[in-house]
Parts: sequence; structure tokens; C-alpha cells
Amino acid sequence: MTSSPQYLTGDAAALNSFIDKFDTFLFDCDGVLWSGDHVFPGTADTLEFLRSRGKQVVFVTNNSTKSRADYKKKLDALGVPSNVEEIFSSSYSASIYISRILELPPNKRKVFAIGETGMEQELRNENIPFIGGTDPAFRRDFRPEDYKLIADGDPSIIDPEIGVVLVGLDFHYNYLKICLAFHYIRRGAVFLATNIDSTLPNQGSLFPGAGSMSAALIMMLGQEPTALGKPSQAMMDAVEGKFHFDRSRACMVGDRTNTDIRFGIEGKLGGTLAVLSGVSTKDDILHGDVRPAAYLDTLSDLLGAKQ
Amino acid sequence: MTSSPQYLTGDAAALNSFIDKFDTFLFDCDGVLWSGDHVFPGTADTLEFLRSRGKQVVFVTNNSTKSRADYKKKLDALGVPSNVEEIFSSSYSASIYISRILELPPNKRKVFAIGETGMEQELRNENIPFIGGTDPAFRRDFRPEDYKLIADGDPSIIDPEIGVVLVGLDFHYNYLKICLAFHYIRRGAVFLATNIDSTLPNQGSLFPGAGSMSAALIMMLGQEPTALGKPSQAMMDAVEGKFHFDRSRACMVGDRTNTDIRFGIEGKLGGTLAVLSGVSTKDDILHGDVRPAAYLDTLSDLLGAKQ
Repeated sequence: MTSSPQYLTGDAAALNSFIDKFDTFLFDCDGVLWSGDHVFPGTADTLEFLRSRGKQVVFVTNNSTKSRADYKKKLDALGVPSNVEEIFSSSYSASIYISRILELPPNKRKVFAIGETGMEQELRNENIPFIGGTDPAFRRDFRPEDYKLIADGDPSIIDPEIGVVLVGLDFHYNYLKICLAFHYIRRGAVFLATNIDSTLPNQGSLFPGAGSMSAALIMMLGQEPTALGKPSQAMMDAVEGKFHFDRSRACMVGDRTNTDIRFGIEGKLGGTLAVLSGVSTKDDILHGDVRPAAYLDTLSDLLGAKQ
Repeated sequence: MTSSPQYLTGDAAALNSFIDKFDTFLFDCDGVLWSGDHVFPGTADTLEFLRSRGKQVVFVTNNSTKSRADYKKKLDALGVPSNVEEIFSSSYSASIYISRILELPPNKRKVFAIGETGMEQELRNENIPFIGGTDPAFRRDFRPEDYKLIADGDPSIIDPEIGVVLVGLDFHYNYLKICLAFHYIRRGAVFLATNIDSTLPNQGSLFPGAGSMSAALIMMLGQEPTALGKPSQAMMDAVEGKFHFDRSRACMVGDRTNTDIRFGIEGKLGGTLAVLSGVSTKDDILHGDVRPAAYLDTLSDLLGAKQ
């Protein structure tokens, strides 16, 4: 059963009624607040307006290479007012999931990290011990003697305290890292991915995304990772683990029905709001398999509620 | 319809009758001729016996990192008599397939190679132009400026003559190579894999195999490569392209029903012969989905035909 999404643009009464239903707004960023390096007109005013009505604002991004501090810099540079505590990235989501939701045995609390500095910063912020990441020791060539050392679980190369393998976008992905991740998971480590987007948009084209970093492991293991980005509900659990919001009074705002809107619906949020400034079209929104509760031409149409 | 495989060990008449049906024997190696570095007793005598009866012997291996010359050295070191022309590896198979079976336009005859020296040697032997492989220029870190250059198809980084992407086991696999392979295939290059074995056995354990090198591309593209190793029939076509044998008078010998025996059956060879010295068990052979025409305890049981 899917109902017809309500069009709110230009209808002050409907906008006010919609806004009043929620205490928390979760925002996808690219396609909603900006596109690439171009901020949509009215983005900053709209966020200020929602805050002035007492709404909690949360920025939810699958970007795994940036820490929240990095992402805050990006928001600042684009003139979007925010504070670090409002930002929820997939590396942060993964760190919250590891520290607050996974119950690891005391001798298995270390993470083998495939990722960049953003992931490392978020693991450190949650006091999670890890190896890998940007450590040059893992950016070396594979050596013939590694086969036996890894097969034997030699402590010179296999850390017995690894309980989690966390895979995100890593521009220094290599054979050694795939080998180690595979062996840790076979020895019982939990297989997590920051997100499973196979591609990363850039320069109007596509490049390998965080999901493609997990692909070899998925093929070798015959096992999917628990993903911590949208639309995975593990990310929603992590958001809730931090903000303790009332799901029935929260609304997910996004431009893509299959990730953002799905994320909100499967998370049983009180509402979902699509905008037409990004990937999904009006036809997707009105006739697709996944439909939001309401939609706007562009986010700043919310300012119509002030009139 | 599957019939019951004939047990030949110790039955001289049945052995002679079986051998007489074939002019060509295709051999899987590991598990049939040897296991790891241990050659099975009687391997050399058995091959000599078949040759003395006028049989063509072909060694078929999915190993993509070794050229036929490299593999010949391995056979020599293990005391298995052979000559280079009898060896058929997946990199050689891929080179034959590219040069003799694929019909590439004149301006699209270059290969982007993900693989090691064995692949390079076989491409050179077939006079196939290629880039990539072990060239250090492709073993560098990805740079931020690469996004735009690749997206724009800049000739400083995208070679317009690439018509094939060939993916094999590459111990120097990296982000740049995945990006380039993805963009070449999106621009129309044929997607080939030497083989799709996701893992590589070594030291009694498993490591990433050639198939895992294709996994990210498969996920990003939503497209499978044409594989040139067993059990892919593209490999059988390549074997036939070289040896011009009569399939009805050829027999595939192997230890694994799901790859070796399947390879022979799907290739419509006159016969298939399993041995119990490797992976598949007697139960697999007698009751599995894929069953050989005949089986032996071990390859040297063929010598019982001399009595």
C-alpha cells in the first residue's frame, strides 16, 4: 500500500501543519542543501527558520572519508550554518555502532580499519583502538612470506585482539589489506562497512565508492557486511543511539527515494519529505515503489510557512 | 539425466577401452598430477605412457600470474615431463581469445591489463599491445586531479585505443587501476577476466584470487566479465582455437567435479575422468550434480592398462 505524496510548496497552512508534526529533521546533504559546490538559494535561511521553531537539525551523510570536523569545514565553506554535534557521517555512525551497540568481548575490541583519516578520527573520538587506516605499514607490497605468516596467524602480522573489520573508502586499498581483512573475518571478526554505495560521484562522472572496497571480501566470504550508511537501519540505530529522538516526531528529508526516503520509512520515522532538487524525479516520487509523505520543489519552499 | 560413473582402477580391459576412445587428454594439474609441492607417484610414467600411445597431452591451469614458460619451469622442478606448447594457462587463454576470437576494430586493439608478468608475457607472445600490467606508472597513488582527467577522458590518462580490459590476479591492485578499468569498460571496452576463482589456495589457507580482482568492477558496473579460465567455455574455445582437436575424441581429467568435470561436460568432450587425489570425494563423484564418465583412485592407475 502506497499513498500519494502531499505537495507542500506554496501552501502555508499545509507547511505549518507538516512542520509542527516534527521535533527533529534529518537532512541528506548533496541534492538537498547543495549540489556539488553550489549551495541552493535559501538553504541557510531555511535551517535557521527550523531552528527558530525549536527543531533539532541533523545532517546525515554516507561520506566515509571525512570526519565530522572535516564535514563541518565543508559546511562552513559553503555558508551552511551547523555545529559538529549535528553532523552524522557513516564513519561516525560506524564508530558509534562499534562503541555503543556491538557488544565485543574484552579481548576483541580492536578494529582493523580500511579507510582514510576521517574514519581514524571518528574511531579515536570514541576511544576505539584500531590498526590499519592510513598507517604506512599497511601500504606496502604483499611479500611471498606473508602467505605463511597470515595462514599461521603469526602475531607479527595478525593481531589476536581484532574483533571488527571496518571497510570504508580507502584510496590506498591494496592486496595486503584485502588479505588481512579476509583472514580477520574468517577468524571471527564482525564485518562492517561504512556504506555500500558502489560508486562515488565526482566531476559529473563515477568513481569507486566505499561499497566497491567490500566487493572482493563479499565475493570471497559469501557474506554481506553490516552497512552503517543510508539506507541501512544500523545507521538509524546509531543516530538514535546518539540523539535519543522520538522516531514518531522525526522527519527524513532527501532527494533520493531509494536511499533517503527508504531510510526514513524503514526507520519508522513520523514523516519523510522529498525535494526535487536532486536525483529523484517527480515521477519517481509520485509513482515509484518508495514514496515520501510529502514533497517540495526545493528545500527553501519550507520558508513559505512563515507567511 | 546423470549416469553412474565407471570405476576403472584395476580393470585392465576397461582402462584400455577407455584410453582408446581418446586422442587428447586435458589435465588439470593441482590435485591430479601433484598436490602443492608433492608430486604423486607415477605421474611422469603415466604421462609418458599416454604419449607412447600417441595421445596429445594438454595441461590446463587457471593460474593467471604465470606464463607458460614460468609454468614449464614449475613442471620441470616437479619432475613432470612437458613442453611449453602443451601448457594452457588462463592468461594464455585470454591472449588467444583476444587475438584469435574477439574481432576488435582496428583502432580498439589495445588491452588495459590488470595482472602480473605472466599475463604480460602471454599478451606479448600474441603481439597484443597493452598498457598497465607491471608498469610502475600504474602503481602510484590516486591524485585529486585524476578525477577530472579521467571524467574528461583526457588522453594524458585515458588511452582512446583501449578495446579490452583484462583482469587477472594482481598483487599491485589499487584504486587507480579500478578507476581506469571502470572507465574503459563504460567507454565500451570488452570486460574479460582470466578466471573467476575468488580465492587462491596457499599454505593450507585461502588468499584473494583473480576473481576477487573483478569483484569491485562487477558491483560498480552490474556486469559480469567473460571469464577465460575453467569452467568457462571461452577457455575451451581458446584451447580448440590452438589445438584444433576433435572434441568427441578428447577427455578432461580433473579432481574437481564443479570446475574440471563441468568444463569437460559443458565443452561436449567425448569423456571426463575424475581422480580421488584432490578436492572432490567419491560421494561427490557418484552422487553429485556433475558426474564424470569414469573415475580412478589416482591418475597412475591408468598404468594398469599396460598389463
